[in-house]
Amino acid sequence: MGAPGGKCTIAVDAMGSDLGPTEFVRGLLYAAEELKLDCDFVLVGKGRLLERLLKVRKLTVDPARITIHHASEVVSMQDKPIQALRKKKDSSMAQAIELLRNGQADAVVSCGNTGALMAGGTLRMRPLDGVDRPALGIIVPSRKQPFVLIDVGANPESTPLNLMHNAIMGANYAKAALGRTSPRVGLLTIGTEEGKGNSLINASHTYLKAINGEVINYVGPIEGFQLFDGGVDVVVCDGFVGNIVLKSSEALFGFIGDTMKEELIRNPKRVLGAALAKSAFRDMKKRLSPDHFAGAPLLGLKGNILKSHGSSNYIAIANALRIAGEVVKHDMIDSISLDINQANDLI
Amino acid sequence: MGAPGGKCTIAVDAMGSDLGPTEFVRGLLYAAEELKLDCDFVLVGKGRLLERLLKVRKLTVDPARITIHHASEVVSMQDKPIQALRKKKDSSMAQAIELLRNGQADAVVSCGNTGALMAGGTLRMRPLDGVDRPALGIIVPSRKQPFVLIDVGANPESTPLNLMHNAIMGANYAKAALGRTSPRVGLLTIGTEEGKGNSLINASHTYLKAINGEVINYVGPIEGFQLFDGGVDVVVCDGFVGNIVLKSSEALFGFIGDTMKEELIRNPKRVLGAALAKSAFRDMKKRLSPDHFAGAPLLGLKGNILKSHGSSNYIAIANALRIAGEVVKHDMIDSISLDINQANDLI
Repeated sequence: MGAPGGKCTIAVDAMGSDLGPTEFVRGLLYAAEELKLDCDFVLVGKGRLLERLLKVRKLTVDPARITIHHASEVVSMQDKPIQALRKKKDSSMAQAIELLRNGQADAVVSCGNTGALMAGGTLRMRPLDGVDRPALGIIVPSRKQPFVLIDVGANPESTPLNLMHNAIMGANYAKAALGRTSPRVGLLTIGTEEGKGNSLINASHTYLKAINGEVINYVGPIEGFQLFDGGVDVVVCDGFVGNIVLKSSEALFGFIGDTMKEELIRNPKRVLGAALAKSAFRDMKKRLSPDHFAGAPLLGLKGNILKSHGSSNYIAIANALRIAGEVVKHDMIDSISLDINQANDLI
Repeated sequence: MGAPGGKCTIAVDAMGSDLGPTEFVRGLLYAAEELKLDCDFVLVGKGRLLERLLKVRKLTVDPARITIHHASEVVSMQDKPIQALRKKKDSSMAQAIELLRNGQADAVVSCGNTGALMAGGTLRMRPLDGVDRPALGIIVPSRKQPFVLIDVGANPESTPLNLMHNAIMGANYAKAALGRTSPRVGLLTIGTEEGKGNSLINASHTYLKAINGEVINYVGPIEGFQLFDGGVDVVVCDGFVGNIVLKSSEALFGFIGDTMKEELIRNPKRVLGAALAKSAFRDMKKRLSPDHFAGAPLLGLKGNILKSHGSSNYIAIANALRIAGEVVKHDMIDSISLDINQANDLI
């Protein structure tokens, strides 16, 4: 797998993006040219279209690093996950996963249908031994430094063991993608005193204490109001809570931004002020936008599958590819596997 | 209870606020003088202190409307709820609840220790027949009009029946506090297709469909990204999810605001722009701030107990008192009781 010298190959599902394959090709080239990502790429999708998209660009990277793998179908956002997998075997998503399965790629990056990617990834790559359910981890900005929030939707019905595994997978992801050496792990709950929260949280807390110091660096429960403080590197929750927190945060961000825009154009004085301060709004958006940490890996599988937002722009896509390169380089899956085994023995 | 002509009496726990009793007295007077709240008030707390605080103000309201009920102790934020109730029987919070229990008041408003208020309220006022667990409902701004989010922390381990009751209590609160005639109720989940979410959500969805049209106006599941759209009047969730959504939203709001401030003072041009647009930021904050809907009732009890944020300023306190007046005026508890009985019979 991968070329000598630790070089990696990323299979890119080029068809799933809301913005079309053009944006994906642009993102790939940005990753190779600007982010200096030292990986090979297999662009998976409609062959002739992808060839044409590559041809119109002047490449500064070795063309041998980019190959095209034709796939005649596309999984749409409307497709039901299991049906999509059964009926669209020649989809770009399914074919990218096959490349991973066959060892022709070290990671898959897709902007496509999350449910189909999770189902396909889980069925074809299988969970690691000792892991019941994979989890989606994402990187979120905070007042200090970004942190990993896990799970944001893969597993909406979690057990305490699932949450312990989320903690381990999240910590390994924080090591690989954020370079944290001993990631501080917090458990998202309500009220931080022992016994508060609910029975899932209390049992998970017991597990996390049991593996603290041995497998992870568990700092204890944290509350919603601490979420963006940056006091921890990993926030552990079940997929139901994590998905709602993630999506409602995105919604609130949009709501605040739109309310601000409405107020800023209400009279000429405000419009002038907003024009003068324009760069501040741009920089704020940049600091809070998730574009630089856009790849959300489905953790706990025997292969690296990363989901990028359906509406990812080329910068987000390039960063998802960069993060894919990082998790390959760090042998994240092997580390997770070792930690899971050690933890399962400890509890 | 209450004077003739439907006038109501609100018992005010004046001691629990982070900002001290001065703010509470100021809020009470603002409610009476500016919001023209037509209620009587019993200020509960250290008698001589409260007398002095009232004396230094020139009252434009009939002094007979404000009486003082001495209570020698204060429940602090650090007190454990059950211990606080057992040991501090003469606390302002416990005494305010006793006034409600004895029929000397129609509602209690407190900024104090939430856990103690919930425990005390539940133990002394008891849940309504047919209700297992009370729930905290709050009013949240949205793109269109404010909505009720229920439960935000009273019951972190909910059953489908609890969520059905939350829907009923939230709808009645939306009628009383927001004047909605047929509140649209949504169930917070992940993925809005039937069968998505988790087992709690699926069973709750079945209950809500069963009482739809008869007891409530159920519009179906909603996702996190729809939370601030204003598409529904009531968002139903369990207390674990609701508390995390509420607190993480407050945290995100603060994080965005602080990031914006940092960016706006980065250079003189931005500072000038920010100065010109200052009123826009003030108006935005006003639109998004919860001060105008600050009273969160503990719903499902045989008495009106409203919690206001520990750091509530006088405007928030005044609005909590106003909302207390509304729920009394609307006989909200009787309506909830009728609806609960009807729904429990239907499922």
